[in-house]
Amino acid sequence: MIDQLRVDGDRLWTTIHDLAEIGATAAGGVARVALTDADRAGRDRFVAWATELGCSIHIDRIGNLFARYEGTDPDRAPVVIGSHLDSQPTGGRYDGAYGVMVGLEVLRVLHESGTRLPASIEVVSWTDEEGARFPPAMLGSGVFSGDIALEAGLGSTAMDGTVLMDELLRIGYSGPEPVGSRAIGYYLEPHIEQGPILEAGGHTIGIVTGVQGIRWYDVTITGRESHAGSTPMDRRSDAMVAAARLVTEADRIARDRSPDGRATVGVMEVSPGSRNTVVGGVRMTVDLRHPDADTLSAMHEELLAVAASLDPAPDINPIWYSPPIVFDADIVAALRAGAEAAGYEPVDITSGAGHDACYISNVAPTGMLFIPCADGLSHNEAESIERDHAVAGAEVTLRAVITLGS
Amino acid sequence: MIDQLRVDGDRLWTTIHDLAEIGATAAGGVARVALTDADRAGRDRFVAWATELGCSIHIDRIGNLFARYEGTDPDRAPVVIGSHLDSQPTGGRYDGAYGVMVGLEVLRVLHESGTRLPASIEVVSWTDEEGARFPPAMLGSGVFSGDIALEAGLGSTAMDGTVLMDELLRIGYSGPEPVGSRAIGYYLEPHIEQGPILEAGGHTIGIVTGVQGIRWYDVTITGRESHAGSTPMDRRSDAMVAAARLVTEADRIARDRSPDGRATVGVMEVSPGSRNTVVGGVRMTVDLRHPDADTLSAMHEELLAVAASLDPAPDINPIWYSPPIVFDADIVAALRAGAEAAGYEPVDITSGAGHDACYISNVAPTGMLFIPCADGLSHNEAESIERDHAVAGAEVTLRAVITLGS
Repeated sequence: MIDQLRVDGDRLWTTIHDLAEIGATAAGGVARVALTDADRAGRDRFVAWATELGCSIHIDRIGNLFARYEGTDPDRAPVVIGSHLDSQPTGGRYDGAYGVMVGLEVLRVLHESGTRLPASIEVVSWTDEEGARFPPAMLGSGVFSGDIALEAGLGSTAMDGTVLMDELLRIGYSGPEPVGSRAIGYYLEPHIEQGPILEAGGHTIGIVTGVQGIRWYDVTITGRESHAGSTPMDRRSDAMVAAARLVTEADRIARDRSPDGRATVGVMEVSPGSRNTVVGGVRMTVDLRHPDADTLSAMHEELLAVAASLDPAPDINPIWYSPPIVFDADIVAALRAGAEAAGYEPVDITSGAGHDACYISNVAPTGMLFIPCADGLSHNEAESIERDHAVAGAEVTLRAVITLGS
Repeated sequence: MIDQLRVDGDRLWTTIHDLAEIGATAAGGVARVALTDADRAGRDRFVAWATELGCSIHIDRIGNLFARYEGTDPDRAPVVIGSHLDSQPTGGRYDGAYGVMVGLEVLRVLHESGTRLPASIEVVSWTDEEGARFPPAMLGSGVFSGDIALEAGLGSTAMDGTVLMDELLRIGYSGPEPVGSRAIGYYLEPHIEQGPILEAGGHTIGIVTGVQGIRWYDVTITGRESHAGSTPMDRRSDAMVAAARLVTEADRIARDRSPDGRATVGVMEVSPGSRNTVVGGVRMTVDLRHPDADTLSAMHEELLAVAASLDPAPDINPIWYSPPIVFDADIVAALRAGAEAAGYEPVDITSGAGHDACYISNVAPTGMLFIPCADGLSHNEAESIERDHAVAGAEVTLRAVITLGS
């Protein structure tokens, strides 16, 4: 009986694009920045849709928005599905919205069929995931998990001086519920990949096994400015050459850990910046990532060793470490089984980007599902997904929710 | 008799430092920028010193200044010794001034001893070698050789709108003589090395056999911006990594031609310049140098081949080629013999910097002699040389001039 439940692909696809009309941009994207009128309109629409299904609406003090579809066993903590309704200022139609709309579709399937699982099912939209107007990113989920103080979240200030709490009150989404007080049995976030891996491999469903650990470094290299013509190669202290070797070695360190290792040098500033003067100073960044903490530590040690071997030796300053996250085994298993039951060959994937699921994993069993997006493009009005992929992600989510909520 | 002639080391050293008082800076350097009042004062002092020796003074239309000590054979073209009296805005006491003062000392030795050689001996100060106020550098010698048009030289305009010809008239050094009309039998330019080679090797005298050829390139690399976390290494088109490989390969290309090869990347600009975004675009420069034209061509070809092998492939745009200069064999031989006669072990050296001798080599047999400067430092108020080296350079010049002028 319950195994016969299927999502309504047309309904899902239509609903996603109905939502996308709220804040729609001329270029086909969405501008539904957190706590703007467009964000309010999006929240209102979601609340209306959920209320039609008999859901209760719960809002906490940072504006996180929960629609609860009751289960039969009041002792069971709910299975929570969700993501975020806010977007980048020139965002796409699917980043965040997809996860909330999949949650809504799951509720619709349950409601339409008169199905109630033992566990309640909730759909959440976390406040201000993008952090585009009110930094930092993942603000609402970060306050929920206790990683960001409520006062810091409410006090977050936009470039124009606007304070988050004032906007929350203005749009009517400052709720009474203490943040983080809601029980979460499982948290499951469907999302577009925002990367090229699934599309490149021809995969429809990515089971996210965890989130990469990240190490950030600020690097300073001090050489000696000298004349490009009169200074022999063996008399130089060339900060540019040392920087270049660090770049190629960081690249190698990541490639030695294929396919999961990542290394990126995104910033490089040289001085004095004259074509016939040997570079005396370089400031650059390094970004190392890997889903395994020990491997990431080994990459870190190797980077330091490479730096120490260079002349002039780069000064490597580690400025941030975000440990890898390993997602909940029950959720991963439920997603994998759900995908196989629905006829897909799921592929394991690691998330390279931050999501609300990262913070929530600190306080509840958490998992994610990815579907492909065209060219890996996101945070862009041209963001695009296939209807079949969108429906497949919802089918798999539905099956996993049934497993987890039964 | 003539072989017994020796320079007066105290007189030379004192004269150099008397001259350095004109335009002296608080930090111990010199600000005697071309065609300023300080430049006029420096020229006036030189004219006064040369006139005391019975020299005739000759000034051409671009302000090149010649002091002529007559020889006995009117059919012989003169041996010309010199360099430039102008300095950088925060220049040193020896760059340029040394060569003119050595020429003056040679004239004093000849005058004091009543010696006249068959050839006349002239000491020249070329106008505006530094190009610091009126670009380009080596302006006076460039007009003399015909490489720069007289009109372009006279019309050179400073940042504040001042025109060179007006300043030349103002300081009284616009002469009547057509530029380039003077015969030059040999041109010999003593200079500080402005590099570290002689000091590092413990050498006193460098015989300059030629000037490096130079090839300049503007390089553009177009990759693809992508997310540092979600883009696997094998899916990247990273302009930063390609740039880094080009830097290390250019370095290798030069080191493979030790000790004369040079490669310098002095400018690198990356975009978008975000620490967690793979670099999509790089603009950089490459400067390749070698004293042998064929070797420099081989370096050029190798750089192009390296670029073609990279992905994304750098677009290499050659923007300038200055061919190598090989100095006159008679002058090199005379300097070498002079150095050995004076008890020094001269070392052959290639000039990596531009000098008036580069242009003059196009119209007359030309050579240069280098003495060490501390730490290779020049274009700097801290520029410093040893008294013994200064005197040695003058001794060698005196002997070479006697050889060439006899």
